[in-house]
Amino acid sequence: MRHLTAAASFVVLAFAASSASAEEGMWTFDNFPIARANATLGTNIDQAWLDRVRLSSVKFGGCSAGVVSAEGLVMTNNHCVATCVANLSTQAVNYAETGFTPRTREEERKCPGGTAEILTDITDVTERMHAAGAGLEGQAFTRARDAEAGRIEQEACGGDAGKRCQVVSLYRGGQFKLYTYKKYSDVRLAFAPEDRAATFGGDLDNFSFPRFAIDAAFIRLYENDAPAATPTHFVWNASQPVEGTPVFVTGSPGATQRLLTQDQLFTIRDVVLPMDQLLASELRGRLIRYSQEGERQAFEAMDPIVSLENTYKRGLGRMRALTDPGFMAMKAEQETDFRARAEAGAGDANPWTTLGAAQPIVRDLYPAMALLEGGTGMGTTPVAGGSQLFSWARTLVRGAQERAKPSAERLPEYADSRLSGVQSGLFAERPVYPGLEQVRMEWWLSKTREWLTVDHPSVRGLLGRESPEQLSARLIEGTTLADPAVRRALWEGGLAAVEASQDPLIQYLLAIQDETRAIRSEWEEKVQAPTDRASERLSTLRFQAYGDSVYPDATGTLRLTYGKIEGSDVPGQRWGPFTTFDGLWDRATGAPPFDVAPRLLAARERIDGDTVMNMTLSSDTIGGSSGSPVVNAAGEILGANFDSTVLTQRNAYGYDRNVNRSVIVTTGAVTTALRDVYGMDGLVRELGVR
Amino acid sequence: MRHLTAAASFVVLAFAASSASAEEGMWTFDNFPIARANATLGTNIDQAWLDRVRLSSVKFGGCSAGVVSAEGLVMTNNHCVATCVANLSTQAVNYAETGFTPRTREEERKCPGGTAEILTDITDVTERMHAAGAGLEGQAFTRARDAEAGRIEQEACGGDAGKRCQVVSLYRGGQFKLYTYKKYSDVRLAFAPEDRAATFGGDLDNFSFPRFAIDAAFIRLYENDAPAATPTHFVWNASQPVEGTPVFVTGSPGATQRLLTQDQLFTIRDVVLPMDQLLASELRGRLIRYSQEGERQAFEAMDPIVSLENTYKRGLGRMRALTDPGFMAMKAEQETDFRARAEAGAGDANPWTTLGAAQPIVRDLYPAMALLEGGTGMGTTPVAGGSQLFSWARTLVRGAQERAKPSAERLPEYADSRLSGVQSGLFAERPVYPGLEQVRMEWWLSKTREWLTVDHPSVRGLLGRESPEQLSARLIEGTTLADPAVRRALWEGGLAAVEASQDPLIQYLLAIQDETRAIRSEWEEKVQAPTDRASERLSTLRFQAYGDSVYPDATGTLRLTYGKIEGSDVPGQRWGPFTTFDGLWDRATGAPPFDVAPRLLAARERIDGDTVMNMTLSSDTIGGSSGSPVVNAAGEILGANFDSTVLTQRNAYGYDRNVNRSVIVTTGAVTTALRDVYGMDGLVRELGVR
Repeated sequence: MRHLTAAASFVVLAFAASSASAEEGMWTFDNFPIARANATLGTNIDQAWLDRVRLSSVKFGGCSAGVVSAEGLVMTNNHCVATCVANLSTQAVNYAETGFTPRTREEERKCPGGTAEILTDITDVTERMHAAGAGLEGQAFTRARDAEAGRIEQEACGGDAGKRCQVVSLYRGGQFKLYTYKKYSDVRLAFAPEDRAATFGGDLDNFSFPRFAIDAAFIRLYENDAPAATPTHFVWNASQPVEGTPVFVTGSPGATQRLLTQDQLFTIRDVVLPMDQLLASELRGRLIRYSQEGERQAFEAMDPIVSLENTYKRGLGRMRALTDPGFMAMKAEQETDFRARAEAGAGDANPWTTLGAAQPIVRDLYPAMALLEGGTGMGTTPVAGGSQLFSWARTLVRGAQERAKPSAERLPEYADSRLSGVQSGLFAERPVYPGLEQVRMEWWLSKTREWLTVDHPSVRGLLGRESPEQLSARLIEGTTLADPAVRRALWEGGLAAVEASQDPLIQYLLAIQDETRAIRSEWEEKVQAPTDRASERLSTLRFQAYGDSVYPDATGTLRLTYGKIEGSDVPGQRWGPFTTFDGLWDRATGAPPFDVAPRLLAARERIDGDTVMNMTLSSDTIGGSSGSPVVNAAGEILGANFDSTVLTQRNAYGYDRNVNRSVIVTTGAVTTALRDVYGMDGLVRELGVR
Repeated sequence: MRHLTAAASFVVLAFAASSASAEEGMWTFDNFPIARANATLGTNIDQAWLDRVRLSSVKFGGCSAGVVSAEGLVMTNNHCVATCVANLSTQAVNYAETGFTPRTREEERKCPGGTAEILTDITDVTERMHAAGAGLEGQAFTRARDAEAGRIEQEACGGDAGKRCQVVSLYRGGQFKLYTYKKYSDVRLAFAPEDRAATFGGDLDNFSFPRFAIDAAFIRLYENDAPAATPTHFVWNASQPVEGTPVFVTGSPGATQRLLTQDQLFTIRDVVLPMDQLLASELRGRLIRYSQEGERQAFEAMDPIVSLENTYKRGLGRMRALTDPGFMAMKAEQETDFRARAEAGAGDANPWTTLGAAQPIVRDLYPAMALLEGGTGMGTTPVAGGSQLFSWARTLVRGAQERAKPSAERLPEYADSRLSGVQSGLFAERPVYPGLEQVRMEWWLSKTREWLTVDHPSVRGLLGRESPEQLSARLIEGTTLADPAVRRALWEGGLAAVEASQDPLIQYLLAIQDETRAIRSEWEEKVQAPTDRASERLSTLRFQAYGDSVYPDATGTLRLTYGKIEGSDVPGQRWGPFTTFDGLWDRATGAPPFDVAPRLLAARERIDGDTVMNMTLSSDTIGGSSGSPVVNAAGEILGANFDSTVLTQRNAYGYDRNVNRSVIVTTGAVTTALRDVYGMDGLVRELGVR
């Protein structure tokens, strides 16, 4: 009976263009449609199941992961530990080449700056947040809400280094929830395969299927210098997967923009993505050429290039979505349906009108905001000075200036509740490569000058009479911020230390604060505040029109999605859901990136060629879902999400069940790698593999 | 009375959205609206004036120019001779740095591969061309018309090396005209300033105003090793220009797409420009980094980078036009007006429907066609293998294969009438830089693989099992085509010589002919032929709706436009029409690209600071108009068009009098440079300057 009701309700929903269709939705754990999922999939999960899955789910930087043993062992993607691997490597001992395969737990190594979190509590704080912004406009509105969020977080978690609290805006301000996490600040690398085993096919096979990639790695959570006790964890199931199996994917998808209006999407299509992608494309060219200049440069640039190419290709998929007439017709239809249901009740402050009127301003301000400040959440390319050293210098200068004020008056990222996160990034012992830093900073300064034009007042402030090349060289050669002790001393010395510093990069950041803070203020006043207010209004109208059958846009926080193991039947993109090791041997040409990693190749005779390596699901995922555990109805882990197809990138703006496919590395493939290739007997035992 | 009639007719025209507004139009010399221009400007030009202007106008490569003495002296832009200057320079004797300032005519040097043409005759061949395609579809249609054009050209000019004949498609196939040119194959460089004098502000000031650039140079036409007699020429007028003066601009604007339908423009906005610009952006990054690797690399990459940045910035202006809601609303309005007038008479073969239906195919095929063949005329980035050596190899292989067939059955660029042009490019003694060639070829191969995907059959054919880097290195290191004698021998040896060649680049081009010719055939069959037929139909409907008040899209052939010396009053872009040398001294910072060229700076005391350097006009121009003589109603030359503002780039799709501004280097500035800076006394006397 429950089954029937749910099914009937689904039929209705499928015709309500702005509500979720079956298997659509990155649902929060406190509003997961249990009945509907069970009805769609034929499963029988319940609240206790949800709680166990939530407590086994890990957020690891921008990635997702899952606890797989009682002793803090966590599986994620290899590409999620790639920066950690690069930071732990030198040109002489390069774990990307050899794999990182410690024989004992003592050899597991701390990831610099790495933190992991498990979501333990969700509390509704909507009323407090709405009350804080009530009656305010412009920057006063933005700042009042930021301050309230900081207060709520500080009240709940203040002073507890083992917890993190975060006020999460859901439904673009329709709801606010306080998320409380158990936080692990000591995360160690427990296993990474050879990079090529994880990236077979490289950028060319990225965002495609069939794939042949063991894109998996293990980290371990530590507390008090010992493996953390994690009694709640997924059970390892390495049996061959079966087509059609119902599955759930739990993780922290980064950001979707499905609730944006047409006008907002046009701005992204016309201004945001083209600029971001063109900038990324030139940086890519500079980095590729840099990496060809020698072995040192190749080593330094490898991780940045992979990361940039991934972002760029995702952006390309999004551009294609927003310029696909069929897809955009679907979005238009959804908006028409929503407006037909809701606009009569919209009243004087029609949010569609407000958002439409804001777009010329967004289009005008976006380049300066993106280049000088970043953090608009609209595009694909984080700019932020282009260099690691620049980013640290900015944190030191702004952090010092902001900490001199009461928490509620600061830029929100420096509120008391967020300082410990800022510090872990700042104090991390990461290698710095001056040549690479300079390539990035030259690129950023010259592109800023180009896009804002040379006569823009901010550009004059940024460059003075120096060229981008001269200025970058002076700053990067002169700074001592590569030394973590220097960064720590400046942070702890506060504003006095920062203002007294002779470091040219610190002095530079001090000098450009007026320019860069001004554009941010203008953005908050003219773009962020009116957008947030109108979006909150839209959210109310949406609940009125569709009830709680709508799910919020992804915001980098924990979500659960569901679907089935399934291939693709789109013209030109037809394939079954599985690939095997035999397929890998077939596709290998020997020339990079289609060369099999040496240790993997050497183990060929020991590997069962029929073992499934990768598979696809119909579940609803997006960037940030990387590493997400794939779980069956029994709560067993079947694999980790590591990719999706390029057509799936439209997922940022809307779900299309026909084309949406997540790409998974199976527990079977991981078991094979651990047992038959890399001799990781300890991990194999820990996972309970016979 | 004539004045009144014309003015009244203009009022009507201004409301007919698809017909020309005042000062709009790149008119052909055989359909110039004399009465309307005179009425709008208050001038009194006549047919004899038009004939003199036409015979003084020169097409020089992709640029325009004007004859300014009776002894073959021609003024164009410095950026139009930049490749010639680069070809004549070495790292040790670099004329871009020093300027090219011969003391005598004997020191004038031949531009490798340079040719210049003067349009002597225009004949209507519409009937023959339409008859050739009648009743045919697909590639049969395209090939039949190509063959007929080749026949017409050969009949008119066959065997006469001093003439070139060209069948020009106007109004997108609505008319065909035979253009006959007097052709000069010996073009010598007579003067070029220091590059920085011409490019002050570099890419940053490009496509903007105010400007301070002496972007002018002189070439000389030679016949029989002596300066050509050119009794018809412009009179040099170096007096200070006056705001509001009526002016005419004569030159060969490259290509506009104003007559495209909305659906066609959307394809350019969504697919063509984004791809072309992203590709260009990455190449730019690679070249910039390459140029930083040493002085040799900086020397080699200078001209390619300038040229690429110019194309890229133009493309950016076009992207902005096609994503500007206001501009696109104007285009939509024009189409609505046209369809309202014409669609009832369109009949069964509604061209809007045909073109709309073709767009998914265009979108699908464009990447492969652009990357493997080029020449679609739709985008901004010429790809063609990315390298000069590749391009020569293709000409040799295709030329040999095609010349083995009768002229009418060949690819049109190898018809008998066009072979002499092919040869001048192929035999030109140009330096080749292997490092630079390799950067470009790696870029092209890797981008082709990326955009078409690694599993595309053409990509497999292109790369085999080699990586782009391996393949490029093997071909560029192994080829001997850098030697013009080798190219000449292979060309003259025909197919037998080419097929017997052991040159790896020749062998490679032979091997990929099947792949690349196949995509071209598919494009001609599915895109070009239906587009051409529908466009021809649209053209007929347009004449019916608007009479001959419409002008054809620019096609790289001679046109005349008119307007006034005028500044800009657009918000954020307000300036008067003139800049002076004093303005240059003010803007200079000393840091490139805002450093004054040394010889120019040294002459500062001799220069009258009030002399106007650059000015803007309201006339209708576009890329290819570079070097176009600006002429007053007395037929005197006042300057040369060298740029336009970035907003003017929308000009490709539609003219907007409010924002369209051409940027001109004045004859006064050029006189100052010749007389006061570079001591070019011979030229000064030849120009009749006191």
